[in-house]
Amino acid sequence: MTRTIVASATREIIIGFDQPFCVIGERINPTGRKKLAAEMIEGNFDTVIKDALEQVAAGATMLDVNAGVTAVNPNETEPPLLVKTMEIVQGLVDVPLSIDSSVTAAIEAALKVAKGRPLINSVTGEEEKLEAILPLCKKYDVPVVAISNDETGISQDPDVRFAVAKKIVERAADYGIKPHDIVVDPLVMPIGAVGSAGLQVFALLRRLRDELKVNTTCGLSNISFGLPHRHGINSAFIPMVIGAGMTSAIMNPCRPQEMEMVRAANVLNGTDENCYNWIKTYRDYKPAEGGHAAPAAAPVAASGGGGRRGGRAARVGGGAASE
Amino acid sequence: MTRTIVASATREIIIGFDQPFCVIGERINPTGRKKLAAEMIEGNFDTVIKDALEQVAAGATMLDVNAGVTAVNPNETEPPLLVKTMEIVQGLVDVPLSIDSSVTAAIEAALKVAKGRPLINSVTGEEEKLEAILPLCKKYDVPVVAISNDETGISQDPDVRFAVAKKIVERAADYGIKPHDIVVDPLVMPIGAVGSAGLQVFALLRRLRDELKVNTTCGLSNISFGLPHRHGINSAFIPMVIGAGMTSAIMNPCRPQEMEMVRAANVLNGTDENCYNWIKTYRDYKPAEGGHAAPAAAPVAASGGGGRRGGRAARVGGGAASE
Repeated sequence: MTRTIVASATREIIIGFDQPFCVIGERINPTGRKKLAAEMIEGNFDTVIKDALEQVAAGATMLDVNAGVTAVNPNETEPPLLVKTMEIVQGLVDVPLSIDSSVTAAIEAALKVAKGRPLINSVTGEEEKLEAILPLCKKYDVPVVAISNDETGISQDPDVRFAVAKKIVERAADYGIKPHDIVVDPLVMPIGAVGSAGLQVFALLRRLRDELKVNTTCGLSNISFGLPHRHGINSAFIPMVIGAGMTSAIMNPCRPQEMEMVRAANVLNGTDENCYNWIKTYRDYKPAEGGHAAPAAAPVAASGGGGRRGGRAARVGGGAASE
Repeated sequence: MTRTIVASATREIIIGFDQPFCVIGERINPTGRKKLAAEMIEGNFDTVIKDALEQVAAGATMLDVNAGVTAVNPNETEPPLLVKTMEIVQGLVDVPLSIDSSVTAAIEAALKVAKGRPLINSVTGEEEKLEAILPLCKKYDVPVVAISNDETGISQDPDVRFAVAKKIVERAADYGIKPHDIVVDPLVMPIGAVGSAGLQVFALLRRLRDELKVNTTCGLSNISFGLPHRHGINSAFIPMVIGAGMTSAIMNPCRPQEMEMVRAANVLNGTDENCYNWIKTYRDYKPAEGGHAAPAAAPVAASGGGGRRGGRAARVGGGAASE
């Protein structure tokens, strides 16, 4: 069974098909967050600290850490800033970290200070990237996210994206890196622009699981880009990718609707044993007024009540009427 | 491509793998609803009328109609009551109906008054049932729900449930009924009692689609029986079964959270062309305060805004930070 092991100083997490879905908190990332970028440039880590604590409290399994505050001189500015951010975050929370940078020097600097076994985010199928990142994976014995694009860009053809992923796994093997240390990102296109984006990624995920036997991840919210009520699309996408074999995602754990779908999909996927985490989280759940669940939907205790439900399985030929 | 055609007097619906998920409204069913049963016995159809209108307004594709008000003398009481209920419902709404009864005489009486092409709910693999129901399907040229249990009960072994479904399809063929007129219910166990219930049904659905090439349905809410916050489990189950190939479900369309997941899964499954129905439904969506989506989540217009999102696909190596 494929197992990608990541760890903080004190906590080990396994990413795998038989494990709860690994939620990699995406918030500590100044890309598209001008205020956060400005703060980080000034050496103000208040938002970083807040985002770290909130994401872990919300149920993140890991945290992604990105310090790409500027496109100017990143080779000089990013390594010390990423190191500082990593040190602050790992001093605050005990979840494993994902080192997120497009600057190789920043990744290596972060690897030197990282505790436990972080994840590198990311390598691609580009020669230059492969040659820069894979030796670091080997040297520091850490897993890496492999994004399925190469010099030719992001292919619209899922077979090409699969071939790129396969190439990365093979190149990693040349460096002595095992497939279980490659977490493939099959690349999620916005469904509003590419109507087959969902079907593409579901098919790719099944192939990645069955043929390459690798763990997988994605930037989850890309799927809903440009659509209204993005959280609804993201929320349905989560159970669908989990059902197709995805084992982690880079996402915002501070969204209750999305995290609810992660927890429910874990139950349905058989990775929340005895529904323990579900029952613990939602035992006293009260639906919001006028929200997603009708006010009449009082929670049903795990060990009682609701005995009239589920009538259809019990009474063959009759329908199951809910209250 | 498998196509099950159902129709009311004026409206035809296709159930199929390339079609939007078919939501069969479950509410008109006195099983476990004592007040409704008492009303129907008295000839009071106020709740039936309300449930019919509400379910169609909420987005039901079809309505299930059940008049099983009593276990005493159903052979005498149920046929006229089911006929009356059918007539009222089909006089009110224009969606196709599912005739839901365990009493053969009631099914035949309802078939005689049904307009269009109703669905029979249901037959099982029991000899007596097969011999009673299949001739009616043939005589009235209507499709039927085939529940995967037989004289030995409901098997815990999904292979046995598949074999029962296959037997029903084969027996139907003997009567000249095509596989596209059999909608298999693989039977959903409560996940709180059977931890593998989800994985079982996903595997069964894929086999039913790929090997038997039949449409499928289930009593959806059975999955969450006995658990707290059942709507959360139901809501994640919907995208997962749709991803695995399920094409319809008997469920409560008056639950906004569940219907939202149906609509989102249609988008992701490629059956909501150009996201038309999603955009139409959620264009002006405002999340509930304190509910599933954080208050900051203002809807993003379909054709603009949110341009900073989806950064990860655009900027390889960087993470996608949401606002």
